[in-house]
Amino acid sequence: MKPAYDALKQVVNRSGFGSECHLLIKTLVKASAQELKRCKRLPLVSKVAEKSYFAFKLGKRRSRPVNADLFDVRSTEALKIFQGILNGNRHHFSSEEITRSIYTVAMTCCAGRDVTSDNDQKTPGTMFEWLCAAAVQAALNVAPKRSLPVLNLDLRGELPTDFVFDLGEEKPKFHLPVKTSTRERIIQVWAHQRVLDGVYGVGRFLAMPIILTETKLDAKKLEVVEICLPWQWRLYQMHIANLWNVCYLDAPAAYLELDAKFPRIGVATIGDVLKKGGRLDALLSAHRLL
Amino acid sequence: MKPAYDALKQVVNRSGFGSECHLLIKTLVKASAQELKRCKRLPLVSKVAEKSYFAFKLGKRRSRPVNADLFDVRSTEALKIFQGILNGNRHHFSSEEITRSIYTVAMTCCAGRDVTSDNDQKTPGTMFEWLCAAAVQAALNVAPKRSLPVLNLDLRGELPTDFVFDLGEEKPKFHLPVKTSTRERIIQVWAHQRVLDGVYGVGRFLAMPIILTETKLDAKKLEVVEICLPWQWRLYQMHIANLWNVCYLDAPAAYLELDAKFPRIGVATIGDVLKKGGRLDALLSAHRLL
Repeated sequence: MKPAYDALKQVVNRSGFGSECHLLIKTLVKASAQELKRCKRLPLVSKVAEKSYFAFKLGKRRSRPVNADLFDVRSTEALKIFQGILNGNRHHFSSEEITRSIYTVAMTCCAGRDVTSDNDQKTPGTMFEWLCAAAVQAALNVAPKRSLPVLNLDLRGELPTDFVFDLGEEKPKFHLPVKTSTRERIIQVWAHQRVLDGVYGVGRFLAMPIILTETKLDAKKLEVVEICLPWQWRLYQMHIANLWNVCYLDAPAAYLELDAKFPRIGVATIGDVLKKGGRLDALLSAHRLL
Repeated sequence: MKPAYDALKQVVNRSGFGSECHLLIKTLVKASAQELKRCKRLPLVSKVAEKSYFAFKLGKRRSRPVNADLFDVRSTEALKIFQGILNGNRHHFSSEEITRSIYTVAMTCCAGRDVTSDNDQKTPGTMFEWLCAAAVQAALNVAPKRSLPVLNLDLRGELPTDFVFDLGEEKPKFHLPVKTSTRERIIQVWAHQRVLDGVYGVGRFLAMPIILTETKLDAKKLEVVEICLPWQWRLYQMHIANLWNVCYLDAPAAYLELDAKFPRIGVATIGDVLKKGGRLDALLSAHRLL
């Protein structure tokens, strides 16, 4: 899958996440699926209620935990839906189809890399960023930026950011950190949002982190747990900044619960955000952009 | 050095950083120094102005970069000064002696672990935390906590924190994150300070992160660079929270410069903080605690 990765990297660096990269994403996912076909499936002991996990195993190497219910074994079907989303047809699919498709495509790439490299966290993270950026670009029809100009008295320069999708003057601007998992590092997302609020004004940027999963594997016991800090999230939301929606592929129940609590933190699957009439559409409608 | 580490861990977990652990710190540093005596010194190409670095090398393993001017080859001398600091005698030593001594002791432990393990970041980080906590406990004469109670309407619980040294009612409380390096993760320190400001009130906690170094080694070219983000630090200080003093062992010039700029971010070596009449004494005097 290395040649496919390198080819995609080149196109992403040159022209971002538009149609030129879609074919190369397909090639990368297919190459990754080929690696996984050579693997055995290793059942894992799930300590997460109502979820079951397995790992791909190739020789001595083992992939991160894969959610057995979300991972679509018919990988061509998942890829077809993902290509549909990239082609601007997210409204054709249900919330579950969107979530399963993006989860499967992302996990295929990440697990494919896991079983063919030693301790590489960076490449899976980068591939997941690309897949999410391409999907969101297709939904919003605008390319993301990775930095913003700061002009504030004698303080001038470029502020590096996560993906920023700017719908234009007087229109919503989205701040999209994309992470394969966050644990206690999630506080960075609130802190970056606070900086955007401070530099540009509160409400200018809507934060929508996209996170793959919060699972952690105990390598000896082969047990999967979810690391969740819902109590800290509430303090962050109250005292640092306000996130618009935290978006999960494999959503932890402990965080989904926060979506119904007061004070509220929006937490949803990516399907519930991107589906027809979902959270993104509700926002776009409110701004007469749909 | 594993038995020495385990013994110290047990005492730290049982009774913290008081006199009981001082002897075991000495044992750990001596055991680490023994590992380093078996090593060769590998010169590194320093891309950091006016600093030179080397690495310890044992077989195929290589340590993190060591600042050749700060690392005291007379390790017994460095350890003697460190024991003096632990015994409450920080005022006997110059700023340079304090910085060199703590740098040498910390780097001996970290590099000793580097050359006897594969990719272990956690143990060096923990040892560095213990050494700094013990030194600051000796300076403030109070033991640190690792969590704080939150009682705010229906929100009740314990907030996990970095080290917190509380001098008592109506007296300064210090918030001390201890990190071997920070890079872009430093934003977490500002964010945690913001949560403390929000939950307990602005000014209740004085943040004083202690950081070993910001060096990064290019493994192929054997080049050492410092990763510094002074521009982001200024935005964080203006828009997230106010840090009291950022304290370095191997201080990057790019950050020390911020100490003289407006708006100011206090940045100093640990010697300048702990020496007689240093930053800590100035604060304690202002509160009539010295």
